[in-house]
Amino acid sequence: MLSNVKHIFKLDPNKEISDENLQKVCESGTDLILVGGTDGVTEDNVLDLLARVRRYSVPLALEVTDTDSVTQGFDHYFIPSVFNTNDMKYRDGILVDALEDHFPVIDFEEISLFPYIILNEDSKAFKKSNAYLPPEDALTSTLHMMDKLYKFPYIYIEYSGTLGEIETVKAIKETLEHSKVIYGGGIKNKEEAEAFSEVADIIVVGNAIYDDLKNALKTVARSK
Amino acid sequence: MLSNVKHIFKLDPNKEISDENLQKVCESGTDLILVGGTDGVTEDNVLDLLARVRRYSVPLALEVTDTDSVTQGFDHYFIPSVFNTNDMKYRDGILVDALEDHFPVIDFEEISLFPYIILNEDSKAFKKSNAYLPPEDALTSTLHMMDKLYKFPYIYIEYSGTLGEIETVKAIKETLEHSKVIYGGGIKNKEEAEAFSEVADIIVVGNAIYDDLKNALKTVARSK
Repeated sequence: MLSNVKHIFKLDPNKEISDENLQKVCESGTDLILVGGTDGVTEDNVLDLLARVRRYSVPLALEVTDTDSVTQGFDHYFIPSVFNTNDMKYRDGILVDALEDHFPVIDFEEISLFPYIILNEDSKAFKKSNAYLPPEDALTSTLHMMDKLYKFPYIYIEYSGTLGEIETVKAIKETLEHSKVIYGGGIKNKEEAEAFSEVADIIVVGNAIYDDLKNALKTVARSK
Repeated sequence: MLSNVKHIFKLDPNKEISDENLQKVCESGTDLILVGGTDGVTEDNVLDLLARVRRYSVPLALEVTDTDSVTQGFDHYFIPSVFNTNDMKYRDGILVDALEDHFPVIDFEEISLFPYIILNEDSKAFKKSNAYLPPEDALTSTLHMMDKLYKFPYIYIEYSGTLGEIETVKAIKETLEHSKVIYGGGIKNKEEAEAFSEVADIIVVGNAIYDDLKNALKTVARSK
């Protein structure tokens, strides 16, 4: 699903977007539209975005953060699995619940794990998943585990809402042999997109769509 | 490491075995000697078994249940990761600790995960890892997750000390597409070895070595 993806626009079902702006997002040249949010995700607002994005040819995936809002019709389903938490619900609880509720409706070929490390302790995602900030040694060991033992194809480094430390992301990238890095958090313009595209394989742009669409659209070209 | 393995003898460093009996175990034709135990594992008793088993040509692996007892010289290291627990320490705490303590001394090519489901609630391993018995639906979903999303090559079904329900192990095997089944628990003789070799890809024989070696040795041929 992600093999040719360099840029993702992430749409939050809990936020309003006009048809005109949605068209710009869908025709921006981004490689993937990912629908997902931390709270306020309902079957209604997910279905609304599904129907509206499906007018365009851009690939469309759902990030499953609430099993009640899983609906058919997406090209792919990503289930987050947080690795810097001690709360098993956010490691694989959502995944097990989703499988219990929706198997065999959903084809396993259409489901992947999103193994997350969330590094912004002020973010809603960090708080909701009871994450902790690992000391540097433990972060490195966790990355080795995810990369060399679990052999995940991708690891999602999430700064959710704020721009991460580029040196930290670069060090993470250099630690990994197998896993590619998805970076998300705070990218608002082409300069930031360019900088993070140099240290990550895929960048995710979310809030900027709602805050400053003109500059958000410019993140696409800079990440190719 | 396990691709041609059908039968494993598991030696507990915390139990005594005579040189004569150890020779019989090592020359039995088993595919692998696995050193590991739930408690009383020390650097001294691990090193003692390492030195004594290394006289023979049989492949030798260490199951890392205590990072203090990790020593070089084994062909492979398996790190248990319990999937039916809410205690993150037994999901990947031992793994992260081992990587922190021993990386880069140990080559990642020599380390694998042992993803466990422990189904005997009276066993020491079950209690120590704060495991729970999943309801049937949740067990099936967890197996789908391990098999189709994590894509583990092996899943260790552990009845630790007691013979499992053969129908349960058969149902587990039939649920899995990618993962092979390692079965451990209570196998004492050739009939039991034969029965469990029909529903599992690999059988592990442990306690019987210490309780009734003559019959334990007969489990080797029956699992080929």
